[in-house]
Amino acid sequence: MFLDFLKTITMRMYDLILKKRNGNELTKEEINYFVENYTNGEIPDYQVSALLMAIFFQKMNGRETADLTMAMVNSGDILDLSEIEGIKVDKHSTGGVGDTTTLVLGPMVAALGVPVAKMSGRGLGHTGGTIDKLESFKGFSVEMPRDKFIGNVNNIKIAVGGQTGELAPADKKLYALRDVTATVDNVSLIASSIMSKKIAAGADCIVLDVKVGEGAFMKTPEAAQELAAEMVSIGTNVGRKTVAIISDMDQPLGLAIGNALEVEEAIDTLKGNGPKDLFELCLTLGSYMVTLAGAAKNVEEAREKLQETITSGAAINKLKEFVKAQGGDTACIDDTALLPKAKYVVPVMADTDGVIEKIHAESIGLIAMELGAGRATKESIIDLAVGIVLNKKRGEKVSKGDVIAYIHSNDESNIEKAKQDILSNYVISPNYVDNIPLIHHIVD
Amino acid sequence: MFLDFLKTITMRMYDLILKKRNGNELTKEEINYFVENYTNGEIPDYQVSALLMAIFFQKMNGRETADLTMAMVNSGDILDLSEIEGIKVDKHSTGGVGDTTTLVLGPMVAALGVPVAKMSGRGLGHTGGTIDKLESFKGFSVEMPRDKFIGNVNNIKIAVGGQTGELAPADKKLYALRDVTATVDNVSLIASSIMSKKIAAGADCIVLDVKVGEGAFMKTPEAAQELAAEMVSIGTNVGRKTVAIISDMDQPLGLAIGNALEVEEAIDTLKGNGPKDLFELCLTLGSYMVTLAGAAKNVEEAREKLQETITSGAAINKLKEFVKAQGGDTACIDDTALLPKAKYVVPVMADTDGVIEKIHAESIGLIAMELGAGRATKESIIDLAVGIVLNKKRGEKVSKGDVIAYIHSNDESNIEKAKQDILSNYVISPNYVDNIPLIHHIVD
Repeated sequence: MFLDFLKTITMRMYDLILKKRNGNELTKEEINYFVENYTNGEIPDYQVSALLMAIFFQKMNGRETADLTMAMVNSGDILDLSEIEGIKVDKHSTGGVGDTTTLVLGPMVAALGVPVAKMSGRGLGHTGGTIDKLESFKGFSVEMPRDKFIGNVNNIKIAVGGQTGELAPADKKLYALRDVTATVDNVSLIASSIMSKKIAAGADCIVLDVKVGEGAFMKTPEAAQELAAEMVSIGTNVGRKTVAIISDMDQPLGLAIGNALEVEEAIDTLKGNGPKDLFELCLTLGSYMVTLAGAAKNVEEAREKLQETITSGAAINKLKEFVKAQGGDTACIDDTALLPKAKYVVPVMADTDGVIEKIHAESIGLIAMELGAGRATKESIIDLAVGIVLNKKRGEKVSKGDVIAYIHSNDESNIEKAKQDILSNYVISPNYVDNIPLIHHIVD
Repeated sequence: MFLDFLKTITMRMYDLILKKRNGNELTKEEINYFVENYTNGEIPDYQVSALLMAIFFQKMNGRETADLTMAMVNSGDILDLSEIEGIKVDKHSTGGVGDTTTLVLGPMVAALGVPVAKMSGRGLGHTGGTIDKLESFKGFSVEMPRDKFIGNVNNIKIAVGGQTGELAPADKKLYALRDVTATVDNVSLIASSIMSKKIAAGADCIVLDVKVGEGAFMKTPEAAQELAAEMVSIGTNVGRKTVAIISDMDQPLGLAIGNALEVEEAIDTLKGNGPKDLFELCLTLGSYMVTLAGAAKNVEEAREKLQETITSGAAINKLKEFVKAQGGDTACIDDTALLPKAKYVVPVMADTDGVIEKIHAESIGLIAMELGAGRATKESIIDLAVGIVLNKKRGEKVSKGDVIAYIHSNDESNIEKAKQDILSNYVISPNYVDNIPLIHHIVD
């Protein structure tokens, strides 16, 4: 009997593979069927990888992609944020190097009364996740009962909690399979993967920061545009207002790559002294978040209001309030010298004259990870203090001997290699003129 | 260490999937690598099914297909037939219904001094395999030491042995995976699967009978032509002279579908009293076998010599010699009434006047299987006596009440259903004119 049942499952999955292979559309029921039975282990990996490869070649249309997204959402827990007053807007970045936007945007947006209820993880990467970074504030904790989390968001409009429940387990399982079967880079599969996690996390509206360039998953503006359009279409299809901003990741964003270093950069930015590109991107993303949340009539008004949170000090005060509410020491917000610091801060000097044409973003991220700023495996231990702070960015003129970056390290032995690596990832040309925009395009 | 090794394997396989997915050619080393490591279990099914689907879409060229074939040949045992004198020619049919060619061709060809060294299995299907059929001769056995097998071929030019060793295990494993992942119908994969088994079985030259039509795997002449060309190209590429005959399987071949029934038909044919289509196909296939083996200058001469084996009685005598050498009772060759017989022989009558336009070959095969002539699962027990004998074939005129077929059954309870099923699989039209050729095309 059980074997018969398994055979039925295997046969039906066979039909789905054949259907997609032949270029036909899968129904909502078929998509639910395969996601559900793959998640519970009844459909084997080898049938799903064949289907994924068929999807790679035959694509999925908007309806199928939206159905896949919701099937993955429904494969696990869905956070219930209904006790939080107001419209919940979530922001998601498709990943990049030195991206400090979350730490800056949270307090700015919350200062305007827009609820920021963030669940975060630790994850692998060039630097730690948002939680790791926030632990730069001594005593800061994301462990709190659900009541307190909801209460904090309602009272001070911002809270960051550790991931609870299992969000979109189907996505996790599918992603792991795609990763080893060369079926990652299909726009429907990428878009549904991202959107399923955001929707499961309880967002009413979603603002997407789609990175484009060498340091990003999407290498060309066309690819980024396609992904952005697909995600906005999913959002529209499943009743979540979604806006995507396509922004440059051809060089690292801002100057800092590292945990405490990015916290310091966020504090500086909230005080009005941050890197121009980071602040500009925060204003753009934030103005859509605030508008979608209904706290401004349009993005222009939202932008002005966000500017004011900086000049009035409301944003930096919100950061203090937030850190204090989760047990963190706020002294370092007034005096960033109190943040975790590396033993060695070593300048890297330009070895030629010219204009900076390129800073290989992904490589810079990897160098920071090798210094100890990020996790290569789940077991890696992060050093909050270490990383890289850029001193010169694309389009800037340098002379031989000028400092182009600083290495922050706790291990003398890795400094020389990092120096050479950084130098070889800066491209300096005689007459480069920078014309890559920070914001490529907005899809809404 | 072991995990690192596994990771290396998985990663390298990833690169192969990506390469094929992107439309690039796999090298011989890459193909050997994946076949070898899939066979020994180091590459997981889910990576191979993704590769197979990528191959489905991106195809393989002739060189890749030949390399895949030889990689599968080398995955297991290769029969050494070097002690057999002369050129070993093997014949393979791509499957069909009521195909008795092997039983007829073996003695005809052997009678001309061409060595027939056949390894056979039992397998699943509408009727049993060659071994099952031969067991209609009481006492017949395929179990014999290797020496005797080789000796028989050298002395009387024909022997049929049970499958020994493991031929092309990679093909077996790949086929099972293709079967459940909708990756069967790619011409390179089908062709390499067939050719790998023939080459591993020790053939110097191969004559292929590619069936086309409703009862065949290839439904259209174009698909059959493509498969035939691919197999001939593999043969050429790996140094085995190969000829493919594309023949009709839009209706069953000959008249008998069943084990002893087909043996009787083969005996009749060897005595010169067989169905015209079966004999004609045997002459065509045989003339290429004899020519490739060097026992005739050209196919015309070979055809004449084969005709002579019938008129002179050499072929039927060769059958007796062969059956006797393997312990079988030859009395039934002189008197076919001694073959296993079914209890009930029931005529099926036409229910209308007209010309037979179609006999759904595959359905007729399934009806015979349901009567007990074939194996649906490995555990099924074959009844040698049962089956179907057609009395009218495509293009023949019938009047209502004419016998179109006979059911041979040992179980009264299944006769009525078989009757209805046979009737519903004969299409009789008022004015049909048959113009489907028996031999569609020859690829050499």
